Amino acid sequence: MTHNKKIVLVVGAGDATGGAIAKRFAREGYVACVTRRSADKLQPLVDSIQLAGGEAHGFACDARKEEDVIALIEHIETEVGPIEAFVFNIGANVPCSILEETARKYFKIWEMACFSGFLNAREVAKRMVTRNRGTILFTGATAGLRGAAGFAAFAGAKHGIRALAQSMARELGPRNIHVAHIVVDGAIDTDFIRDNFPQKYALKDEDGILNPEHIADNYWYLHSQPRDAWTFELDLRPWNEPW
Amino acid sequence: MTHNKKIVLVVGAGDATGGAIAKRFAREGYVACVTRRSADKLQPLVDSIQLAGGEAHGFACDARKEEDVIALIEHIETEVGPIEAFVFNIGANVPCSILEETARKYFKIWEMACFSGFLNAREVAKRMVTRNRGTILFTGATAGLRGAAGFAAFAGAKHGIRALAQSMARELGPRNIHVAHIVVDGAIDTDFIRDNFPQKYALKDEDGILNPEHIADNYWYLHSQPRDAWTFELDLRPWNEPW
Amino acid sequence: MTHNKKIVLVVGAGDATGGAIAKRFAREGYVACVTRRSADKLQPLVDSIQLAGGEAHGFACDARKEEDVIALIEHIETEVGPIEAFVFNIGANVPCSILEETARKYFKIWEMACFSGFLNAREVAKRMVTRNRGTILFTGATAGLRGAAGFAAFAGAKHGIRALAQSMARELGPRNIHVAHIVVDGAIDTDFIRDNFPQKYALKDEDGILNPEHIADNYWYLHSQPRDAWTFELDLRPWNEPW
Amino acid sequence: MTHNKKIVLVVGAGDATGGAIAKRFAREGYVACVTRRSADKLQPLVDSIQLAGGEAHGFACDARKEEDVIALIEHIETEVGPIEAFVFNIGANVPCSILEETARKYFKIWEMACFSGFLNAREVAKRMVTRNRGTILFTGATAGLRGAAGFAAFAGAKHGIRALAQSMARELGPRNIHVAHIVVDGAIDTDFIRDNFPQKYALKDEDGILNPEHIADNYWYLHSQPRDAWTFELDLRPWNEPW
Repeated sequence: MTHNKKIVLVVGAGDATGGAIAKRFAREGYVACVTRRSADKLQPLVDSIQLAGGEAHGFACDARKEEDVIALIEHIETEVGPIEAFVFNIGANVPCSILEETARKYFKIWEMACFSGFLNAREVAKRMVTRNRGTILFTGATAGLRGAAGFAAFAGAKHGIRALAQSMARELGPRNIHVAHIVVDGAIDTDFIRDNFPQKYALKDEDGILNPEHIADNYWYLHSQPRDAWTFELDLRPWNEPW
Repeated sequence: MTHNKKIVLVVGAGDATGGAIAKRFAREGYVACVTRRSADKLQPLVDSIQLAGGEAHGFACDARKEEDVIALIEHIETEVGPIEAFVFNIGANVPCSILEETARKYFKIWEMACFSGFLNAREVAKRMVTRNRGTILFTGATAGLRGAAGFAAFAGAKHGIRALAQSMARELGPRNIHVAHIVVDGAIDTDFIRDNFPQKYALKDEDGILNPEHIADNYWYLHSQPRDAWTFELDLRPWNEPW
Repeated sequence: MTHNKKIVLVVGAGDATGGAIAKRFAREGYVACVTRRSADKLQPLVDSIQLAGGEAHGFACDARKEEDVIALIEHIETEVGPIEAFVFNIGANVPCSILEETARKYFKIWEMACFSGFLNAREVAKRMVTRNRGTILFTGATAGLRGAAGFAAFAGAKHGIRALAQSMARELGPRNIHVAHIVVDGAIDTDFIRDNFPQKYALKDEDGILNPEHIADNYWYLHSQPRDAWTFELDLRPWNEPW
Repeated sequence: MTHNKKIVLVVGAGDATGGAIAKRFAREGYVACVTRRSADKLQPLVDSIQLAGGEAHGFACDARKEEDVIALIEHIETEVGPIEAFVFNIGANVPCSILEETARKYFKIWEMACFSGFLNAREVAKRMVTRNRGTILFTGATAGLRGAAGFAAFAGAKHGIRALAQSMARELGPRNIHVAHIVVDGAIDTDFIRDNFPQKYALKDEDGILNPEHIADNYWYLHSQPRDAWTFELDLRPWNEPW
């Protein structure tokens, strides 16, 4: 282990966006630590970063379990290096009528998309304040700004993440930690959209769905901002997306 | 039991506001069903409503336990009468640095101030849609709009409640159910404020803290609005409150 | 003239809403002073209030002309009585593509729906601060919160009115003047809607358009709020309005 | 004139920010057309860009006069080249109690900071839609989101600009024109701040005021975003700015 490494930790690197963010930071020389629940699915991402000449480590971690999260951050900080940038990218966009929503699902969505964000961001922040530096980035959604019909659970979790980001930004900004919230508004180019929303996916030809690499550029951009001009929030949507 | 009774259910009637709301509806002829975790603390409220000639029932209920909530709503609907108005009034304003916030407390605050709101509102909504009528009111806070430093947990819960209210309003409005969210911004005239914030409490003499009865008037007002002109959200603050 | 009269001044009493507000306050014993550009169109409203036993005065006033506004407020204050409540209710909802919008129209819409609100509210506020009491109410619209395609001019004016209301509320609240902003979201039961949007108007049978009298009730309600629990903003929309 | 030039037009290039934006685009090969009311004050900026090997043209233009604006855009489009990016950067942050605000000042602030934005953006948009490409950027402020006490006029103008930006974004986005709004929240490193707010200016040593060049980087960044992931709004504030 060498301490002059800079680490980016991406929690929720299972989807296209998380993976693209990890690659983007790796391309800039960061060691990418990526997590999702099962490690095997991380291997292709780790391989891809290493193949491109970068350093990457995949960790299986249940981001909702406090002990696991504490152990993971401790492990990374002592065995890999100081976490310079942290990205929380777990979503759970599962619509449901409020009349049918189960307590279990409402809880699970919050636990995945909000509570685990709190756990991981808190653990990372504890380290960052000792160094007076760092960046904490949360993937948000339009549901974080507005609760649409049929989205009570998802909107609740995303509102919670935005509240967390705002509160952390106000507390940790003056300690030189840059906290930001990215509002992704639109379908992303993923297998999920391709398989389930073919009409939406067809917009890809005219740039009508978000390219994960372009999303990732914004995370890197936010991380790179000098501290006299930090952005807390920006939105991202395709040019032809109605809003 | 007679079915021409109209019921108001106030979940979280432990504090001054919940009690005042129950009394306000009782004064208009509603049967007040009030809940909090321990029943004995409800007795003074129930007595007070009955003494004034109203009907009131106190129920001990852990609003966070799905089975308890389901059983309570079922009991009220079959044994007392149809719930015409529902008020969710559980708060949990416990500030803490994000660096010190425990997973347990972050979870508890959400469970009390958001999850139990979902559970109760869903159960009530299921009944209301069968009758195509009803009012669902959520007590909100400024923390539901903005996450201040040191309030990640409370702001998260209050953001979640607001997302729930918005989502339910958009889904249930067209089914003739009026969902609204009241943003209380300022200290309320309670024992808690008197004992812990004496300087704030001293503002009472110049109407500088909110009178629970005046808050309650707004809940009744919202419930009384004709359906061609429903309010989703209003804020309440003392005249001299900075904002 | 007797100074124990209480005056409500409604600027923009030409439409159904302004008229209904004037009547509502007159019913509560207020002397209704109502203005619009041409006096003759005010006569039916004045007659109607007087017929119901109230006192009303109609004034032709170009609300965009500073000298006229100053003279009008001076006249009312010295000849009729102190303005206790002021309502600004001039709209100008004229959509247009940004590519076709003329400078003249963009300016006119702002002048009518925003600048005249500033002029009148300022003049009234100057009097109210000398008495340390009063209510100032602005009719807003969803366009005050969001600029839709084709509504740059109207949204600009309505955003401006909301900014004015917020700024005045923050400055004048601590001087015991209640400033509030009412967001009307939906079609109102007017001749204009009947003649131009018959499909919308047909929703009247199911309470799908706003009844001006119900809107007016909210203005009275806001004016009546005790000062420990003032509302700055509330929205109004029909139960089945999508939002 | 050659049509393979790309033009950036910065209206309001009098201050540090407008100048920095012009230089930033010039560095990327854009021809910088810069305007302010009097041409002579533009010369240092034009010289500076040319000295660095760029191309720049200064134009005296009263941005509030429709004919002048039409003539200017026509001149640039025919004599210099197609406007690829347009930046509106005129501010007018002059606080005043609502009780003292003059009609003249309220109007002037709006005319400078909002109306001229409409005029220039409309003229530019008319050209851009014929080419189905272009970027339109508005400098906003926190006053565009919230009307503070004493800022009715400035907040009104900035709210109006934000409404304009939103409306244009929604109408012109689907025509491949990227409209964005930058919320600058904090003091900028300018002579004005240095001379009038020395305490604020002293924060410069710890990056506590915004560097115009860093602001400019964000304008370039927004212009460079691929169209599948456009940002409509981002905020910029120093790390230690309270908000």
